Amino acid sequence: MLRSSVTNVLYAQAGGVSAVINTSLAAVIETVRAFPDRFGRLYGARNGILGVLHEDLVDLTDTGTETLERLQHLPGGALQACRFDLDPLEANPAQYERVYQVLKAHDIGVFLYNGGNGSMLTARKVADYCARRGHALQVIGIPKTIDNDLDLSHAAPGYGSAAKFFATSLLEAVLDLRAMYPTSTRVFLMEAMGRHTGWIALSGSLILDQLPDTPLLTLFAERPFDYAAFLPRVREAIDRHGYCVIVVSEGIRTPEGDFFAVARCNSQHVGWSQMGGAAMKLADWLRRDLDTKIHAAVPDYLQRSAAHLVSLTDWEMAFEVGRVAVEAAAAGHNGVLPVIRKISDEPFEWETSLIEIETVADLERPVPDDFITLEGYHATSKALDYLRPLVAGERPVPWHHGLPDLRPVTFPPVAKKLPGWSE
Amino acid sequence: MLRSSVTNVLYAQAGGVSAVINTSLAAVIETVRAFPDRFGRLYGARNGILGVLHEDLVDLTDTGTETLERLQHLPGGALQACRFDLDPLEANPAQYERVYQVLKAHDIGVFLYNGGNGSMLTARKVADYCARRGHALQVIGIPKTIDNDLDLSHAAPGYGSAAKFFATSLLEAVLDLRAMYPTSTRVFLMEAMGRHTGWIALSGSLILDQLPDTPLLTLFAERPFDYAAFLPRVREAIDRHGYCVIVVSEGIRTPEGDFFAVARCNSQHVGWSQMGGAAMKLADWLRRDLDTKIHAAVPDYLQRSAAHLVSLTDWEMAFEVGRVAVEAAAAGHNGVLPVIRKISDEPFEWETSLIEIETVADLERPVPDDFITLEGYHATSKALDYLRPLVAGERPVPWHHGLPDLRPVTFPPVAKKLPGWSE
Repeated sequence: MLRSSVTNVLYAQAGGVSAVINTSLAAVIETVRAFPDRFGRLYGARNGILGVLHEDLVDLTDTGTETLERLQHLPGGALQACRFDLDPLEANPAQYERVYQVLKAHDIGVFLYNGGNGSMLTARKVADYCARRGHALQVIGIPKTIDNDLDLSHAAPGYGSAAKFFATSLLEAVLDLRAMYPTSTRVFLMEAMGRHTGWIALSGSLILDQLPDTPLLTLFAERPFDYAAFLPRVREAIDRHGYCVIVVSEGIRTPEGDFFAVARCNSQHVGWSQMGGAAMKLADWLRRDLDTKIHAAVPDYLQRSAAHLVSLTDWEMAFEVGRVAVEAAAAGHNGVLPVIRKISDEPFEWETSLIEIETVADLERPVPDDFITLEGYHATSKALDYLRPLVAGERPVPWHHGLPDLRPVTFPPVAKKLPGWSE
Repeated sequence: MLRSSVTNVLYAQAGGVSAVINTSLAAVIETVRAFPDRFGRLYGARNGILGVLHEDLVDLTDTGTETLERLQHLPGGALQACRFDLDPLEANPAQYERVYQVLKAHDIGVFLYNGGNGSMLTARKVADYCARRGHALQVIGIPKTIDNDLDLSHAAPGYGSAAKFFATSLLEAVLDLRAMYPTSTRVFLMEAMGRHTGWIALSGSLILDQLPDTPLLTLFAERPFDYAAFLPRVREAIDRHGYCVIVVSEGIRTPEGDFFAVARCNSQHVGWSQMGGAAMKLADWLRRDLDTKIHAAVPDYLQRSAAHLVSLTDWEMAFEVGRVAVEAAAAGHNGVLPVIRKISDEPFEWETSLIEIETVADLERPVPDDFITLEGYHATSKALDYLRPLVAGERPVPWHHGLPDLRPVTFPPVAKKLPGWSE
């Protein structure tokens, strides 16, 4: 199955970014260099698959040491990450033909796609199309999602850092609240990202390690949100403790199954709604019913880009999936991605293992039932045991004029070989 | 003017807390010990002046080394900080008499009030009342406000850390935005605290040191917010750069002088409104007019409690005002507070100087005109020169199970000597 000749490698990023996705990129750059007999140039597509369609490529091969260092603490997607997917092959074969032409023109035999399940499945179809056109293409996925909803992986690279930021921020804000509640704010809400899952919301419960008596109520996207049943719980917390802390998954739904809050419906994409606003809406409802001072925080992008506060465990996972993806390509694999497999709890040890892209695509892993208490508002001790190792460890960042040094990196463009492209 | 005998000292916190107010407390505890011939016990009032009224005191004198260490990175108010002020003397002399009785009962000759201008002015009146009743009381203020609106001080302790968190978070989020805007979010808003001033909003402009080409528009509380004039600026940014970043002071007002957004009006406090919601409201308006994907972050308490990201400069200022306040008391001063005076720009050097409480009370320092460009949406280079030293330097925190170790500290209660009190 091994190729006999040297081939070029293409890397791209897709979907919502994270604080550590560029760490995976750094690992790819480093590891490709370890296989000079297998790999020639390493290209990056700007803006994911769109960069392939538009032949908008950069050359990552000769990335210098300083840039490589910088990538390892740079949030966002250094190559830009598209929220765009190819159409189904039967609906738009021209797209696939174009991708094939670009890959062939640049002698690309390996496509590393650092994205979500859907992007990887598309890439797999590109490989099939290329094979039919006589161009051998290996597709290897590199997982990343702060939502942690990647099935068959102990955790998704990106999640641990988001969880560390969310729990740290909640802990700090709750100390503020505890100082003020007798004469000021009595209810503090914080909104967690996660359209369909409550993984980030779950991480807020880590504050109980330090503040075990906190009246913390978590609204999980996995549980129907019944305001009428919830309100008495808030009243009870205030009566008993003087204050109440509420963590809200942005994607909570009413018992009827509708999203509780929607920032915007998309007219071009039926059935798709931008999440956001659940904490603010709930704060308004509680103000109406409790006549007390209420504050709400919506960290939004802050929770997925906090480079100054990444989890070392998460960072290592992000590096490792990048490294192993390249090794898998070198070994001739196709249509696989590395996932995280836990080896032991105490001490926490993990390894990567390769699985078929098809086995994860379109699966979505909710917070399991035994991570949420029966009445639905609290994390179980099993959940906390799961979370702690994922947020463990820190990685110092360099500083520049008082802020983390996150000056962007640039890469040289690759000369185009084909005419321009438009749909 | 020096007392001949040893007297006890009382310390209290009031008003909105910060990431470094407990650092001032730690400095007070340490410094009181340096004057055994002047000071006896050091007490803390729980929940500010309310703790005095209720004789709810703790003993800080024998605070151990570990607690002293912990205080230096603990956000919130370790003694709780009230949003409550005494009535005017003529309206409620019973309150002043009660305060006097409590101070006398515990032989308190020095009152250190770590709060805002209003609280300090009240404390000054307490001292006058006590003097009339034959009890000598020195009142020394210790400044703190993340809003940085303390007049006559180069900066207020608490501000530098809030600014560092705000600018860091904005920088990270903008890197996320830059990765996604071609196919996703095109406008990102972030809301800054500051009811009447735009000091924290101003700090967002520090991202220009690293991302000088960012299309950043800042809405200062000091400038009327005219949506009709603003909207074309957002369109222009999107047309030219593909995206737009907007920093919103929570306290922006319409050209008619009304707050743009109010979270809640307080029925018990005429004329007072809780700020919050400006970024969300503006995001809604922009969604309506631009039909594009918009995200908004509201860090809320996160920006004033981020213990894991304090500015070392700010931390040192907070420590120093605590230390100098005690020294001022030892030297016999009354009715003063230490403020920060800049000595030199390059290198940045500062010292504390004592000023009369009356000279700052009720003054409120807006962002000066030469810190804001003429059209009103940008910081000037003079503003950036002002900001950089204030956010400079870091101070590592200890960690506990992956989060900053912020486990609260406790202090032994002081036995009550008087009957209970109620209005």
